[in-house]
Amino acid sequence: MSWIDDPEFRADRPFGPQTLPYGVIDTEGGRQVAVRVGDHALPLRPLADALGERVGPLVAADSLDPLLAAGRVAWQELRVRLGEAVRSASAPRGASLLPLAEVRPVLPFTVADYVDFYASRHHAENVARILRPDAEPLLPNWTHLPVGYHGRAGTVVVSGTDVVRPSGQRRSTGGPVFGPTERLDIEAEVGFVCGGPVASRVPTSAVTEHVFGVALVNDWSARDIQAWEYQPLGPFLGKSFATSIAAWITPLEALTVARVTPPLPDHPLLEYLLESGPWGLDLSLEVRWNGTLVATPPFATMSWTCAQQLAHLTSNGATVRPGDLFASGTVSGPERRQRGSFLELSWGGREPVTLDDGTRRTFLEDGDTVMITATAPGDGGSLVGLAEVTGTVLAGPADQREQR
Amino acid sequence: MSWIDDPEFRADRPFGPQTLPYGVIDTEGGRQVAVRVGDHALPLRPLADALGERVGPLVAADSLDPLLAAGRVAWQELRVRLGEAVRSASAPRGASLLPLAEVRPVLPFTVADYVDFYASRHHAENVARILRPDAEPLLPNWTHLPVGYHGRAGTVVVSGTDVVRPSGQRRSTGGPVFGPTERLDIEAEVGFVCGGPVASRVPTSAVTEHVFGVALVNDWSARDIQAWEYQPLGPFLGKSFATSIAAWITPLEALTVARVTPPLPDHPLLEYLLESGPWGLDLSLEVRWNGTLVATPPFATMSWTCAQQLAHLTSNGATVRPGDLFASGTVSGPERRQRGSFLELSWGGREPVTLDDGTRRTFLEDGDTVMITATAPGDGGSLVGLAEVTGTVLAGPADQREQR
Repeated sequence: MSWIDDPEFRADRPFGPQTLPYGVIDTEGGRQVAVRVGDHALPLRPLADALGERVGPLVAADSLDPLLAAGRVAWQELRVRLGEAVRSASAPRGASLLPLAEVRPVLPFTVADYVDFYASRHHAENVARILRPDAEPLLPNWTHLPVGYHGRAGTVVVSGTDVVRPSGQRRSTGGPVFGPTERLDIEAEVGFVCGGPVASRVPTSAVTEHVFGVALVNDWSARDIQAWEYQPLGPFLGKSFATSIAAWITPLEALTVARVTPPLPDHPLLEYLLESGPWGLDLSLEVRWNGTLVATPPFATMSWTCAQQLAHLTSNGATVRPGDLFASGTVSGPERRQRGSFLELSWGGREPVTLDDGTRRTFLEDGDTVMITATAPGDGGSLVGLAEVTGTVLAGPADQREQR
Repeated sequence: MSWIDDPEFRADRPFGPQTLPYGVIDTEGGRQVAVRVGDHALPLRPLADALGERVGPLVAADSLDPLLAAGRVAWQELRVRLGEAVRSASAPRGASLLPLAEVRPVLPFTVADYVDFYASRHHAENVARILRPDAEPLLPNWTHLPVGYHGRAGTVVVSGTDVVRPSGQRRSTGGPVFGPTERLDIEAEVGFVCGGPVASRVPTSAVTEHVFGVALVNDWSARDIQAWEYQPLGPFLGKSFATSIAAWITPLEALTVARVTPPLPDHPLLEYLLESGPWGLDLSLEVRWNGTLVATPPFATMSWTCAQQLAHLTSNGATVRPGDLFASGTVSGPERRQRGSFLELSWGGREPVTLDDGTRRTFLEDGDTVMITATAPGDGGSLVGLAEVTGTVLAGPADQREQR
């Protein structure tokens, strides 16, 4: 029996010894790399010496940056050593557990480039049907390549950070107006955190060399700003005000059992997008709006995998480097309750969602809180968790009055 | 008379004492911040003590990052001190001049987020007429806001870096194929390098607090990849393989005399986009293709200024931080010889451009070199230069055979 006395630290709970996600927390001794065990954080700096000279220095840092840069062999060795340390009957010297409720996680790595994909066919089709009802729901390129675009790395924030309602231009009668968005939305997504050597033209078979871990992402979206601005160069200010990422990054290695074959298109894929082993992931997401479970998006329904997205992203010679983050795009399944955005859940604002307290919602109101969580099947019937990504909406500055 | 013995270091030449752009060069003593004087680089580390304790340490670094972060007051003080040092009759102790032909500049700062705008009405209309001849040339949002999108920061490279022809998906009969682009193009742009405090909702009047300097940018573009991928989320792999930036950043302060009023739309702008003093810039660009002057794009014709772009970019609460780079979009004037892309110069590949050696071009061939330069009016009839951005196209890897 492990020295870690936490009822959540069990194989049938999301953050047992089979998961061991990494984060960075603010402590009295400064920022520290930590691993999540059940409902506790285990700071790793005191354990650095015991972890050995190869991986110890990587976790003595104040961010995950050195660990990300170190590459797959180091990631594997650290995971083995940590597995031993948390399963041991006696606590390693210097180890101390901090209740999660008492720690403040910070953004755990320096985000280099942030790319957002659009890999759910159901989401793409729903959005098209809502916003462009007269057009074909799926553009011709969609089944041939993972459509994506660059987002703003500088406004990626850690879970728990409040999200200030953005102002921006939106359509109105008599021309555009500038003011607080009236259609503030979420996008429940899965993000992939990159590390290892700087590389380009990464084959799908090399994804484990370059993807360190997986974290839930909420790509907050102002639909009215986005609708007015996005043609012809894509989303910009409708997205760039905030993108939240979970505080704890689950190692990709913990998701080996969760690998599934993604839905395939009805035509062959170009060679560089083929996978020898599939990298679809059987993650079950849950979206809670002020505590009410409003959606259960199934990640296994996504049409493009992280391996295909990384291969595509680098196929033109563009490099991937440590700290790059790419996200899946909104996860939406075929059923109504499986939609990962409020645009879809409320069908463009026309069909309100009723919360447990009886209130009705279409888009986000000030004070609303959204939390996204996920689990996946692990080894031997265990459960692997992706930590929550959560955020509360605050009103914008009072001086942001409407401009006409 | 100055101690600097260089016929190019005169007020009527682009890199006289009125300009003093900053860069970073590789020297025997490591990377050093330097200032360009005529056709020489003046490394600044040996002068750090003489420059004083406030600004000296900023130029003793191995990149411009500390200087960018320091903010406007430091930028002004350093410029005053350097002006004194280069105009002095005797060389400051430790100063040495390196001929530009013998120095290797490196990317002078860490690019944080890279945003590319689309501020030339002529460019936007030309592209629309070429690619979407049946549609209105200008979308309704274009005259109301500076349209832009995020590009890839990790593939911004310094002038002189070779550009490897990218491969990617493009349309073909019977479905898309993957292979080397057949429509490799340039976009002659002007980039703005940000510094100062992290800020959001930056008013147009505060642009000098956040824009450190100006540098030419070549936003290399693979038109066939772009045309297939860009809907609905904008350009991605058609651009992300490489974006070149000049090695020398001209301080915004050097361009005070070049300020002009931009062309105004035929309707009022929303308040946050108004300027109390205009930030259009009278820059004359020159584009040379294998040495032949093929275009002279006038930056004064751009419809959106750097102050408006920064105000827009941060209007939703998004932060600007040191190292952020935003570019103007392709600079094209109303006349044929003023177009800043080969897509426009060759009108979609239908009207070849004849170079001085008699060869004809539509898009770039392997081995081609493109150089963009610019000048602006300075104080007292002087000339202010923006340093060249240049690059040579190399063939892609031999194993990148076509996939069908």
